[in-house]
Amino acid sequence: MKNFVYHNPVKIVFGKGSIAQLGSLVPATARVLITYGGGSIKRNGVYDQVCRALGSHRVCEFSGIEPNPRYETCMRAVTLARAEKTDFLLAVGGGSVLDGTKFIAAAIPYASGDPWKIVSQGRPTAVATPLGCVLTLPATGSEMNGFAVISRDSTQEKLAFASPYIYPQFSIMDPETTYSLPPRQVANGIVDAFVHVAEQYLTSGPPAPLQDRQAEAILATLIEQAPKVLSQPQDYDTRANLMWCATQALNGLIGCGMTQDWSTHMIGHELTALYGIDHAQSLAIVLPAVWRNRRSAKAAKLAQYGRRVWGLHDADGDALVERAIAHTQEFFEAVSVPTRLSAYGIVAAEAAEKVSERLRVRGAKLGEGEAILPDQVRTILEQCG
Amino acid sequence: MKNFVYHNPVKIVFGKGSIAQLGSLVPATARVLITYGGGSIKRNGVYDQVCRALGSHRVCEFSGIEPNPRYETCMRAVTLARAEKTDFLLAVGGGSVLDGTKFIAAAIPYASGDPWKIVSQGRPTAVATPLGCVLTLPATGSEMNGFAVISRDSTQEKLAFASPYIYPQFSIMDPETTYSLPPRQVANGIVDAFVHVAEQYLTSGPPAPLQDRQAEAILATLIEQAPKVLSQPQDYDTRANLMWCATQALNGLIGCGMTQDWSTHMIGHELTALYGIDHAQSLAIVLPAVWRNRRSAKAAKLAQYGRRVWGLHDADGDALVERAIAHTQEFFEAVSVPTRLSAYGIVAAEAAEKVSERLRVRGAKLGEGEAILPDQVRTILEQCG
Repeated sequence: MKNFVYHNPVKIVFGKGSIAQLGSLVPATARVLITYGGGSIKRNGVYDQVCRALGSHRVCEFSGIEPNPRYETCMRAVTLARAEKTDFLLAVGGGSVLDGTKFIAAAIPYASGDPWKIVSQGRPTAVATPLGCVLTLPATGSEMNGFAVISRDSTQEKLAFASPYIYPQFSIMDPETTYSLPPRQVANGIVDAFVHVAEQYLTSGPPAPLQDRQAEAILATLIEQAPKVLSQPQDYDTRANLMWCATQALNGLIGCGMTQDWSTHMIGHELTALYGIDHAQSLAIVLPAVWRNRRSAKAAKLAQYGRRVWGLHDADGDALVERAIAHTQEFFEAVSVPTRLSAYGIVAAEAAEKVSERLRVRGAKLGEGEAILPDQVRTILEQCG
Repeated sequence: MKNFVYHNPVKIVFGKGSIAQLGSLVPATARVLITYGGGSIKRNGVYDQVCRALGSHRVCEFSGIEPNPRYETCMRAVTLARAEKTDFLLAVGGGSVLDGTKFIAAAIPYASGDPWKIVSQGRPTAVATPLGCVLTLPATGSEMNGFAVISRDSTQEKLAFASPYIYPQFSIMDPETTYSLPPRQVANGIVDAFVHVAEQYLTSGPPAPLQDRQAEAILATLIEQAPKVLSQPQDYDTRANLMWCATQALNGLIGCGMTQDWSTHMIGHELTALYGIDHAQSLAIVLPAVWRNRRSAKAAKLAQYGRRVWGLHDADGDALVERAIAHTQEFFEAVSVPTRLSAYGIVAAEAAEKVSERLRVRGAKLGEGEAILPDQVRTILEQCG
């Protein structure tokens, strides 16, 4: 096990009816800016619940934070927040609203020039406006971590940043708010959580058997619950299980002491930035190809994954590894997230060329041990046709 | 899944050499009281590492916190801390030192009469002196929770209390500090962690499949690592795995949304208070008997436990349940923690009478659904002979 530091101060308030506790979680004297997305929270009743729970708090609001939240949009919220002297941000929505709000939180007090540097320089910010969250979409884990991913139109970039100051002070998670999600968002969330686990677990570092089993626990539960949520979207327990799986997938716990990878995310971000496909779609395309490309380095863990998560006890060696990868790909396809570039109308050879060139310019070295160079990314994407 | 709140702000600093980070974790201007036990930290070099890391911090110290830390001992530390104007406590040792220090932290600012009320009234304290921890014994999970258990000589009581203010601000966990532990303490720690998981997992509440698998992950890892640590006490990875298992067993995570039991602990505390046997010894005696007594209510989970944790795929029904319990008992015996009262020179009929009478006086109702009344405790203990 590698040395590690784990510190996750987010207070999780989980369960049906929990939005009603919002009034006591947001400081009574705060000047609150509520941030949200395209308005689904007005159709499904969440907005009304939030307003009721906030009672006499002073609030203003900013809507229109889009999927893959854009720097340009967030900066409009920063201008509003500064004008309103906002001192507490409340993100109501999914991971994109929350990631956007984390950037807004870091940008409001930022005084060192262009706030894009918060993202592009990759250094943790030293201060941020406090924030809380009402989560309505289980997927990114952003409700219990200090990460955010922001896109910028003018440069077609999609970059992540981290800071100990952007952990939400609390996250309210009511599974009933997820009943009305479109199936595509539910499926994307399942794939996103699955790949978050894979990036931390499917590696070849020093042994950490508890963390391995904690990761396998999430994967097995996602595989078990996925068909249920698609066939019975109003089943409370299924929604609750998925919601908690997505949080556990990226709150730092299963990554403690582990070698991590994240090459699938880095390559996927480029596909989303270039072609506008959903984040989870990009992951479903790239993960199996990365595993096939790195199968010799990852062979032992892929075999363990095949046996423990997929119950493949009648195979061994290369056959076991290939079946483990194939099962993963079939799982993504079964929740209707295609795993081939062609399914999204993208020509593999062109994507391979463009993405590898962008990564070459940045001098990128991806994955565990920084073993995946841009040329290898080209090979990986050529095989995703 | 039941509604829940999860909030665990402890910063974990884990790994070899991590005590060196102490100087930056304790506030530079603090007046520190170092608390410890019988002096093993002076023999194994931990005390020297702590002093070196604290450098120019202002420190004084209090030694002699014993296993099952006593109110009377802790109150002497409170007197010292008040005289020295201590504003930061640093516990160096195992769960007993840490639990004692948590009580000291709550008692220093306590101004509502007899500080024993902090424990006996079962209400969370509203304030405490900040504390940190250097853990040297994996067992209780106290390094990452807001619980403590304190004993009082004059009344032969052993009681738990909880408060959000007694979470350590940080816990440093260096597995190398555990190399020199006596085998009995190592074995006790394994049993303690195992039973902590069992109290939260072996229940019959609404389904929570991720939490089930997270609990099974800890149990399986404890079973896998236990023989290794006893045969190779200097193996770093094994020590690290056990240490992290014990923390995860009682940091609140696996109990999220779960019905919990804790009857084994409540009965075990009485045995320790009356007969002075180790905490883990009391648990090893009581757990199998509680399971046999409550086997119909817990049948489904006991069967799942037997299949998933012990791999008992060739049995079913009552036979599966009995084998799952028997395997547990054999596991405790295999790490040299006897599971019969007679092995400790205790007459079962007498213990059954005394413990059930003490619980009757307190009006105790134990376990999930408060289903275990004092008469049933008598039956349970009579079967532990």
